[in-house]
Amino acid sequence: MATVNTHHPVVTLTTDFGEQDNYVGVVKGVILAQNSHARIVDVSHAIPPFNVAAARYTLETAMMAFPPGTIHVAVVDPGVGTARDAVLVEAGEYFFVGPDNGVFSFLSKKDITQIITITRRKYLPKEISATFHARDVFAQVAAFLSLGVVPEEFGHAKKTLMPLPEAEMKRKNGDFIGTVIYIDHFGNLVTSVRRERLPGHDFLTFIDDHQLGPLRKTYASVPVGKPVCYVNSFGFVEIAVREGSAAEHFGIGYESSAKILIAPM
Amino acid sequence: MATVNTHHPVVTLTTDFGEQDNYVGVVKGVILAQNSHARIVDVSHAIPPFNVAAARYTLETAMMAFPPGTIHVAVVDPGVGTARDAVLVEAGEYFFVGPDNGVFSFLSKKDITQIITITRRKYLPKEISATFHARDVFAQVAAFLSLGVVPEEFGHAKKTLMPLPEAEMKRKNGDFIGTVIYIDHFGNLVTSVRRERLPGHDFLTFIDDHQLGPLRKTYASVPVGKPVCYVNSFGFVEIAVREGSAAEHFGIGYESSAKILIAPM
Amino acid sequence: MATVNTHHPVVTLTTDFGEQDNYVGVVKGVILAQNSHARIVDVSHAIPPFNVAAARYTLETAMMAFPPGTIHVAVVDPGVGTARDAVLVEAGEYFFVGPDNGVFSFLSKKDITQIITITRRKYLPKEISATFHARDVFAQVAAFLSLGVVPEEFGHAKKTLMPLPEAEMKRKNGDFIGTVIYIDHFGNLVTSVRRERLPGHDFLTFIDDHQLGPLRKTYASVPVGKPVCYVNSFGFVEIAVREGSAAEHFGIGYESSAKILIAPM
Repeated sequence: MATVNTHHPVVTLTTDFGEQDNYVGVVKGVILAQNSHARIVDVSHAIPPFNVAAARYTLETAMMAFPPGTIHVAVVDPGVGTARDAVLVEAGEYFFVGPDNGVFSFLSKKDITQIITITRRKYLPKEISATFHARDVFAQVAAFLSLGVVPEEFGHAKKTLMPLPEAEMKRKNGDFIGTVIYIDHFGNLVTSVRRERLPGHDFLTFIDDHQLGPLRKTYASVPVGKPVCYVNSFGFVEIAVREGSAAEHFGIGYESSAKILIAPM
Repeated sequence: MATVNTHHPVVTLTTDFGEQDNYVGVVKGVILAQNSHARIVDVSHAIPPFNVAAARYTLETAMMAFPPGTIHVAVVDPGVGTARDAVLVEAGEYFFVGPDNGVFSFLSKKDITQIITITRRKYLPKEISATFHARDVFAQVAAFLSLGVVPEEFGHAKKTLMPLPEAEMKRKNGDFIGTVIYIDHFGNLVTSVRRERLPGHDFLTFIDDHQLGPLRKTYASVPVGKPVCYVNSFGFVEIAVREGSAAEHFGIGYESSAKILIAPM
Repeated sequence: MATVNTHHPVVTLTTDFGEQDNYVGVVKGVILAQNSHARIVDVSHAIPPFNVAAARYTLETAMMAFPPGTIHVAVVDPGVGTARDAVLVEAGEYFFVGPDNGVFSFLSKKDITQIITITRRKYLPKEISATFHARDVFAQVAAFLSLGVVPEEFGHAKKTLMPLPEAEMKRKNGDFIGTVIYIDHFGNLVTSVRRERLPGHDFLTFIDDHQLGPLRKTYASVPVGKPVCYVNSFGFVEIAVREGSAAEHFGIGYESSAKILIAPM
């Protein structure tokens, strides 16, 4: 069970708002207006617009670094203004607040204590903008949660979270098939394949028709300029070009549908 | 009247310093060196260089989100080192610190309690750089203000703030004429026309010679790729292209002098 | 001697991590997980990748703005995973934590109280990633230091820090020779020549074969579009083009080996 540290509440933000406009500042202001003790930390505001899978990866791999009780707010929300739910999730030692669009689908059933659909207006402003739920819903819920309001106060219980099938690894004829879910600022390609789900030790790796050699534990042992497939520090299979950009090397962006194949040897 | 919360003082920063260099970090260090309790929040550091109108819009639309007593520092300061005044303004529940170059001209006379020209050196360092008033003047004033020093201590009273006529809507033959004052990271064009100043309900809208159709309340009802003129969530008339960039569509940047015309129907 | 303010500890971060990925957020989470009182301030995360000289300049010119006792963490670390030391330095009123690769080489022997090579594992996690020492070593050391753990607890004393000869001014035949160590977001070129080390008042300045005229105190007195060599607000000789970009004007980037020559007249 998670407990907010009401003396030193930490709230993190993961969004696709960018750093140019004042949206992030406004969200922080709203939180501080309710709880001047809140410690607000940016995880990233440079998620590619509307890319739920990239936001999911960013939050999943960052959240554990934070103190127990941290409230993680994620707002990558292509469905804002439509019928998608707004949710508050308690899982492991943390709370999660955001749209129920798959961004929290990395949370395992085992870890989830409760899921609340945010329906009660008690802690929300009278007017809720159709397009800025980060300000009018998620920041408000995070702020009151950080003050000690219990999750049940914000709405009613819900059984499951939306999955994000397109960001999950698949199996086919004994092989493991994935996609690129994140491209970091070095141009490394993070895939949807998690090392812990691969049985055994020896695998041959491919991106589309390109053979990338055996799956490595780290990106050491290839020459400069050569591609390599290895397990990154968060346990995901990743493709890099040593001292280069795999995204450029393979001409891969978020819009591409490159297929990653991991074949047991 | 505004009162600083000396237990949990909040200071916001709106600048054109960018995120690359250490200028923002230095300003924060200076504030914390005087008041280790200060909570400093970035509104934006990506204001286009020297663009006072864009900074004004950014601050005006963000400030209300912050708790009463917040000290808003704005430094977009093409006149640094010249004769422009440095000011501290108390308006509504907030304080404002920065150059008197129009960046605070959205504050209404009704809301302004006092304007102080910063002339006393008591709270300033002995040497004031000709180019870095953010560090040597504005950060210092914000820090001491956050400690409870009263505005009158920093200088003498002044009657009015510099206006920013080029960022104000004009009337001509019953029509309303505006300019583009802000371009957000989606390429939406925010204009100087405020909905609350338009009488009536039905208007035909133009950007230069392009007719944009009736003024809408939201950006919903046009097809993908089409331009639309509507009222944004802060109450400003804005031009967008649905799922696209209006800036690209119309070839508009900050240097362009596109004319917005709103005609009552 | 430096003393951490354990009531209001300030930790600064200077890295080449960029703002896109979650690395900076993770480092902040790790610090807050150990010390929820820590005040963490970004100096810059946009240091050019692996550019130790640029990080050194950025930190050297920012650090003095912060309150006594501040812990400055710098992570630009091309040697991560190799034999380079991890160090904690006490100098003047501050602490410094990071790789011993020259990034702290601006600290003078006179100011340094002690240098500790971080060798004890007591305050480090059991598993240390080969590539993310910012999270597994430096953030941990900074966090425990901010809690009041004394430097000696983290390892054993060391006599000297790695120098960074390529970022130091040289003398030749009475002239002073420097390189470009930093390019700011205006395209101004900061050189390794410090004004305080130049004897006398009158100098002729060159970048490669281009004569830039006399060394100026400020960048005022040249016409728009013309280059000028002057002393910047941190005391370094800098080359600018008035209302333009010196980097573009001279075609200079970090990879170039342009030579700056300052000749006494």
